[in-house]
Amino acid sequence: MPHNMNRQIRLASRPTGWVTLDNFETTEQAIPEPADNELVIRNIFMSVDPYMRGRMNDRKSYVPPFQIGEVLQAGVVGEVISSNNDDFSEGAIVQGMLGWENYSVSSGQGLYRLLNTNVPLSYYLGILGMPGMTAWVGLTEIAKLQEGESVFVSAASGAVGSVVGQIAKIYGCHVAGCAGSDDKLEFLKNELGFDAVFNYKNSLSLPASMAEVCPNGIDVNFENVGGEIFEAALWHMRNFGRIALCGMIASYNDETLQPGPRGMMSIIGKRLRIEGFIVTDHPKACAEYTRQATQWIDEGKLIYRETIAEGIENAASAFIDMLNGKNVGKQIVRLDDA
Amino acid sequence: MPHNMNRQIRLASRPTGWVTLDNFETTEQAIPEPADNELVIRNIFMSVDPYMRGRMNDRKSYVPPFQIGEVLQAGVVGEVISSNNDDFSEGAIVQGMLGWENYSVSSGQGLYRLLNTNVPLSYYLGILGMPGMTAWVGLTEIAKLQEGESVFVSAASGAVGSVVGQIAKIYGCHVAGCAGSDDKLEFLKNELGFDAVFNYKNSLSLPASMAEVCPNGIDVNFENVGGEIFEAALWHMRNFGRIALCGMIASYNDETLQPGPRGMMSIIGKRLRIEGFIVTDHPKACAEYTRQATQWIDEGKLIYRETIAEGIENAASAFIDMLNGKNVGKQIVRLDDA
Repeated sequence: MPHNMNRQIRLASRPTGWVTLDNFETTEQAIPEPADNELVIRNIFMSVDPYMRGRMNDRKSYVPPFQIGEVLQAGVVGEVISSNNDDFSEGAIVQGMLGWENYSVSSGQGLYRLLNTNVPLSYYLGILGMPGMTAWVGLTEIAKLQEGESVFVSAASGAVGSVVGQIAKIYGCHVAGCAGSDDKLEFLKNELGFDAVFNYKNSLSLPASMAEVCPNGIDVNFENVGGEIFEAALWHMRNFGRIALCGMIASYNDETLQPGPRGMMSIIGKRLRIEGFIVTDHPKACAEYTRQATQWIDEGKLIYRETIAEGIENAASAFIDMLNGKNVGKQIVRLDDA
Repeated sequence: MPHNMNRQIRLASRPTGWVTLDNFETTEQAIPEPADNELVIRNIFMSVDPYMRGRMNDRKSYVPPFQIGEVLQAGVVGEVISSNNDDFSEGAIVQGMLGWENYSVSSGQGLYRLLNTNVPLSYYLGILGMPGMTAWVGLTEIAKLQEGESVFVSAASGAVGSVVGQIAKIYGCHVAGCAGSDDKLEFLKNELGFDAVFNYKNSLSLPASMAEVCPNGIDVNFENVGGEIFEAALWHMRNFGRIALCGMIASYNDETLQPGPRGMMSIIGKRLRIEGFIVTDHPKACAEYTRQATQWIDEGKLIYRETIAEGIENAASAFIDMLNGKNVGKQIVRLDDA
């Protein structure tokens, strides 16, 4: 049922260390009207993602920081409800970088129409959206994954990690990962087909756990976490291994710069490559992925799980829960009925 | 004048921390005779290189460790004085991985004849040998250096660094580097044509020094040193920069694993690539380099400086001095007249 007001979540203050609910404020306004060439979207699903934590700091990065008092931004899927823009007509289902809000005004720039939506709309924020594309770009474009290699992924049950593992299995790889709860390990083993997993919170020795799940070493490490998990993976790399550096969620709430992994000398001896990447640099690979993944989902080869929070009023807590690893699969917020 | 005995330097004990003369012992034997298919070489020049420090530890690496009581190995240029091997006749000038000794016995495996030696024989251990090839492979194969980029090299006046800087200048790059004495800085600026240099021992702030010598950031960092210099270079990289990880001499004498640079998150945001390499993995590029470098030397485009120690009895101290940065250019030991 459409909302009769536009509720919006704004950045109240920049977090020092861990994000808290105090860093957010909620405001209300009337449902906006489109100006010339604009359109208004009724937002149905929005995404909360780890990279947003970086945007809460006032630090130059590849995406500009959120501004205090401004509405936060997020990937959104919604329906056009009024339009003065020739490219988008009422009733169109669109996807774009919009706001943490019930209704968004857009010029149409950076907005995409979703055409054949055989899958739930929320999938376009996850397995068919940025997280899925990130998994694909990291494995294929950055790590140059080869059939039969040994792959380790951290934060394996997350939005990106769960796709990494499944694509690597499709490539016939040995796939191992870690996560932070036994529920997640069950999901990885029984539903996603991971070969070996461990709970990093219970591990008495990360290097020993790493050796257990990848007994022949690691050819490709898809790194989402950083810190000690990254260090243990680095130590366990095979010659000519590649590390696709996607995220370092372990340090996103740190106020001071943390040292890198010990033992970086091995990068030379083992001829390792560590490469950072941003999915939006690779539009061609992303398009390729969307076609391929849609087919894999149809064929049942890609399984997908979401954790869905209900309502804009729960967006901030869903974001904080996700940073704390409480989600299994992609964390989504449902803003309205599809 | 040929020696009448074969003096040999052996590993007496493994160093803990810094290498000392106590880690070496000298023995003497008669000049060896070749068995079937063997040849004997009178060694003229031998090389001491940073990587040898790693071989003194009992640790698995890309080259096996030196063994206690055994003659140490080194790159050597010498003359065949007796031969039962059809591939090498008496009087041939050869190069290979032989011993810290006046005379070496060889099966011929891994031994190369030097044919057109218009340059001093010692060059085949430096600018035309492994160090020169390392500079070339790191810049072209690993860092994919492009014309006009901004290059920073640490240990810039060393055997590898001095070639890195000159090749990058030939590529029309902005070239900066650091070294540990004012003499070395003079050499870099006035003889090798570096655009900007600093003495890391006098720097009050490595990040500030880095910003001064590379005002527009660094596209390619050729890393020989590691530690804080590496960290400062990492912080100063430009988007899509590449770090060719060649050596980390700052940590070669450490007994415990040192942490990596702080701020590795920037690898993601700036899409950096860090890649370790070993020159011997790239024989094709090495052959290409030898042709190219010989021409550049003829044309006066590549300048070369050596620090030459005299006599096998000074090999160990020359090695220790080199690890302490006392050499300018390639550290060589002359074992006999050419």
